[in-house]
Amino acid sequence: MNSFSFYNPTRIIFGQDSLSQLDSQIPQSARVLILLGGNSARHNGTLDEVTAALGERTVFEFNGIEPNPSYETLMEAVALVRREKLDFLLAVGGGSVIDGTKFVAAAVPFDGEPWGILESGGQRIERALPFGTVLTLPATGSEMNNGGVVTRKATQDKLPFRSQHVFPQFSVMDPTKTYTLPPRQIANGVVDAFVHITEQYLTYPAGGMAQDRFAEGLLQTLVEIGPRALETPQDYETRANLMWVATLALNGLIGAGVPQDWATHMIGHELTALYDIDHARTLAIVLPSLLQVQREDKRGKLLQYAERVWHITEGDDDARIDQAIAHTRAFFESVGIATRLGDYDLGPEAVDAVVAQLDKHGLTALGEHKNINLDVSRSILNAAL
Amino acid sequence: MNSFSFYNPTRIIFGQDSLSQLDSQIPQSARVLILLGGNSARHNGTLDEVTAALGERTVFEFNGIEPNPSYETLMEAVALVRREKLDFLLAVGGGSVIDGTKFVAAAVPFDGEPWGILESGGQRIERALPFGTVLTLPATGSEMNNGGVVTRKATQDKLPFRSQHVFPQFSVMDPTKTYTLPPRQIANGVVDAFVHITEQYLTYPAGGMAQDRFAEGLLQTLVEIGPRALETPQDYETRANLMWVATLALNGLIGAGVPQDWATHMIGHELTALYDIDHARTLAIVLPSLLQVQREDKRGKLLQYAERVWHITEGDDDARIDQAIAHTRAFFESVGIATRLGDYDLGPEAVDAVVAQLDKHGLTALGEHKNINLDVSRSILNAAL
Repeated sequence: MNSFSFYNPTRIIFGQDSLSQLDSQIPQSARVLILLGGNSARHNGTLDEVTAALGERTVFEFNGIEPNPSYETLMEAVALVRREKLDFLLAVGGGSVIDGTKFVAAAVPFDGEPWGILESGGQRIERALPFGTVLTLPATGSEMNNGGVVTRKATQDKLPFRSQHVFPQFSVMDPTKTYTLPPRQIANGVVDAFVHITEQYLTYPAGGMAQDRFAEGLLQTLVEIGPRALETPQDYETRANLMWVATLALNGLIGAGVPQDWATHMIGHELTALYDIDHARTLAIVLPSLLQVQREDKRGKLLQYAERVWHITEGDDDARIDQAIAHTRAFFESVGIATRLGDYDLGPEAVDAVVAQLDKHGLTALGEHKNINLDVSRSILNAAL
Repeated sequence: MNSFSFYNPTRIIFGQDSLSQLDSQIPQSARVLILLGGNSARHNGTLDEVTAALGERTVFEFNGIEPNPSYETLMEAVALVRREKLDFLLAVGGGSVIDGTKFVAAAVPFDGEPWGILESGGQRIERALPFGTVLTLPATGSEMNNGGVVTRKATQDKLPFRSQHVFPQFSVMDPTKTYTLPPRQIANGVVDAFVHITEQYLTYPAGGMAQDRFAEGLLQTLVEIGPRALETPQDYETRANLMWVATLALNGLIGAGVPQDWATHMIGHELTALYDIDHARTLAIVLPSLLQVQREDKRGKLLQYAERVWHITEGDDDARIDQAIAHTRAFFESVGIATRLGDYDLGPEAVDAVVAQLDKHGLTALGEHKNINLDVSRSILNAAL
């Protein structure tokens, strides 16, 4: 097991009717900005519940944080917070709204142009406004971690940042708030959580026995509940487990003390930036091909994955690995997510374009062994055609 | 899944040479009290490393926190802290030292007689001194939770307390510090962690899919590494996994959103108080018998445990449950921990005495269904003869 540091001070308030506890989590004197994405929280009553829970506090709203939140949009929220001297942020939405809120929290007190936050990967963050979240979309895990991704519209650069100062103080998670989500978003959430786990698990054996068992347990749970989450949207147990699994997939726990990959995400980000494909769909395109191309490096863990997650015990090593990759692809397809570039009307020209973007962003040594250079990325993308 | 709140702000610093990070975790101006148990930290060099890491800070030492730390001893530490105006506590040891340090942290600023902390189960704690830990003995999980148990020598009352104010700020965990522990303490740690997990897992099915998988993964890991931890004391991977598993067993995660039992602990505490049997040994005595007596209430989870932890698939339901209980008992015995009252020279008179103590302490409705009354406790103890 590698040495590690683990710290996660976010308070989780989980369950039906958990929104009623908002009042006790925010100072009575707070001047609050509620940050929102589209109009779903307004239409399904969640926003009304939130504002009711906030009682007499001064509350402003900021609407329109887009999927893959943009620097340009978020800087409007920063201006509003500064102008109105607001001092507490409340994200109501999914990963994009929460990521955006983290950026706003850090940007408001930032000295200088906040783009520096993104250029430094978050290292230049020295303080942030306090904030909480009301999660409505299980997927990214942003509700219980200290990272985010922001896109600059002008250049389509999609940049991650991370800082100890941008953990949510609390996250309220009510599974019933997911009942009215479009099936597409639920399917995306299932795949997003799945790939968050594999990025921290499908590397090489490193002796993290609990980490491996936890990762396998989360993957098995997703395999079991993924299709059910689509078939029976109002099944509380299924949605509750999906919500909690997606949080545990990326709250730092399963990645502590073990190697991590993240090449699927890096390549996927370029696909989203260039072609506006949903984040989770880009992961479903890249992962199966990456596992195929990197099968030698990942051999030990792929065999463990085959046995413990998919219960594959027949055939020689390579046959079992092939089956595990095929099962992974089939699982993504089973929740309605296509896994080939061609399914998104993309061909070889997209391979060239993505490789060029990876080059431009200096992403020439990806993966747990830093050996996914541009040639390997090209092979992965070709295998995904 | 039940509704839950989860919060755990303790920072974990894990790995070989992690003690060097102590300096960055404690204010430079702190006046520190180091709290210790026996002399092992002094003899094996850990104390020297700790004091070296603390540099120029003012440092006092308090020695002699006993296993099952006593109110009487801890109040001496409270007096020292008050007299010398110390403002940061550092526990160096295992669960008893850490539990004791939590009590001291809460008792120093407490208004009135600190026994009130224990009488209220910790509810009367409104503030506590900041403290950290250097863990030397993997077992109780106290390094990453907010609970403790303190015994009043005069009456042999063993009382638990819990409060949001007594999470360690940090815990430094260096697996190599466990190399020189006596085998008896390692074996106790394995069993203690195992039973912490079963108390939160072997209840009734409640739809906590990730919680179940995590619990099963931790149990499987203990089964795999328990004997190895004794056979090869200097195997880093084994000791590292034991240390991290014991922490994860009781940091609140696997118990969030699911029913909990804790009857084994409550009955075991009385055995320790009356006969001075090591805490873990009392758990090894009680658990197998409790599972036998409560098998109807726990049927669903016992079958799941049999299949997922022990891979028992042959025989009818009752046969599989019998095998799972037998495997549990055999596992405890395999690390050298006897599981019968008779092995500790106790007979029927001990059953009467423990039941009388349970009665005296009002522990007449234990377990996840609150149906372990004094008669059931008596049956459990009789089954353990």
